[in-house]
Amino acid sequence: MTRALLMSSSRKDNLGYLEHADRQLRTILDGTSRKVLFIPYAAVSFSYDTYEALASPAFIAADAELTSVHRFDDPVAAVNDADVIAVGGGNSFALLNRLYEAGLVDAIRDRVTGGHASYIGWSAGTNVATPTIRTTNDMPIVEPPTLTAIGLVPFQINPHFIPGKPQGHNGESREERLLEFTEINPTEDVLALYEGGALLVDGTDGEILGEHDALVFTHGATPADLGRNRRFPLTDLKGPVN
Amino acid sequence: MTRALLMSSSRKDNLGYLEHADRQLRTILDGTSRKVLFIPYAAVSFSYDTYEALASPAFIAADAELTSVHRFDDPVAAVNDADVIAVGGGNSFALLNRLYEAGLVDAIRDRVTGGHASYIGWSAGTNVATPTIRTTNDMPIVEPPTLTAIGLVPFQINPHFIPGKPQGHNGESREERLLEFTEINPTEDVLALYEGGALLVDGTDGEILGEHDALVFTHGATPADLGRNRRFPLTDLKGPVN
Repeated sequence: MTRALLMSSSRKDNLGYLEHADRQLRTILDGTSRKVLFIPYAAVSFSYDTYEALASPAFIAADAELTSVHRFDDPVAAVNDADVIAVGGGNSFALLNRLYEAGLVDAIRDRVTGGHASYIGWSAGTNVATPTIRTTNDMPIVEPPTLTAIGLVPFQINPHFIPGKPQGHNGESREERLLEFTEINPTEDVLALYEGGALLVDGTDGEILGEHDALVFTHGATPADLGRNRRFPLTDLKGPVN
Repeated sequence: MTRALLMSSSRKDNLGYLEHADRQLRTILDGTSRKVLFIPYAAVSFSYDTYEALASPAFIAADAELTSVHRFDDPVAAVNDADVIAVGGGNSFALLNRLYEAGLVDAIRDRVTGGHASYIGWSAGTNVATPTIRTTNDMPIVEPPTLTAIGLVPFQINPHFIPGKPQGHNGESREERLLEFTEINPTEDVLALYEGGALLVDGTDGEILGEHDALVFTHGATPADLGRNRRFPLTDLKGPVN
């Protein structure tokens, strides 16, 4: 019985860190101890202390309490004791690499899919909750042992989705990148979440939260809207063949 | 005696495919047979035939002839017979994965570092010429066996360098991404090439070609200009410790 809130971004418009997500956080925190174990491993150019201080206020505002895993001697034991695990954004490759170094990929998967802990992720923390980080927007600044990740949902997610090309940008648009993904992986769909949006996972069902519908990229098809605020079976989207 | 032309991009301003690079191509082709073996493996959403037809005209304009490796039964033998090898842009992960599948990573490295063939790369074709593809701008849509690449130069290159953030873009700027790279890899520099720019490699020396100086990102320092049109020892830039 997996319960997870997979958010696109930590920021929306001019709001503060996770400030847009207050209702989403309250939804996933309801019925838990509200004591949240924070995984700050996606931070690259600032300290884990700084990251904990940055992420805390939004959780305090939602009547919860955040403690970073770097304050524990044994990260695996900390995960095994947690009933809410929050994985913050930053660089997905650094995050996944450090999760493997600490032995947390299997530990988090077991704890969350076993129904013992709820999972909250944003940005890179959402990327690592999918089968692999092959739909991250980040630079691969470090090489993890594999791109295979925690896999709380059976399909890929692309966070920070922005349609079209910014002015003066000569690279591919995001749509082009995701269509390339479906071209080379024709049996897999990608759920694209706009900034401020989220996927709420409740067992085998999902629900899009936020102000926008999500988009589903499927091989050979025009990207399709996935309406918000209604439950759908997670298996509506195709994932890697295991 | 490695000879290589590592270009940032296939396009510049409103010019046609590789049209801006006519002088750069002539420089690297001088003294060769001008028969170029083309590696189209970075193409994802269009065919190798189409890619060969797209890349050919710029080589014909430089009095050379392009033949794609997919027209040969044995890609390794084709590389071992080539005296000019051109690796085109597209997706770096797809490119590197297919190079490994075809057994071409070692074959190209041996042929070029042995002084038997000159190497021409642009965009993803430049990424795979560095020690690893950890400074690509591309989405990791497929997982190669490793991010370790051909390694014709001892340091990382970031192609398509654009300073600052495009409007409406909430992600990191390129500078932020490359500074994160040097943060997590403090013993490694990154050479950033503006669109239209190139690194010409002649043995143990390099030279920046194009209209702009290049930029060197080093841990703990402000990015520094690397002036164009003058030779410098490649070892001026730090690479992965082997």
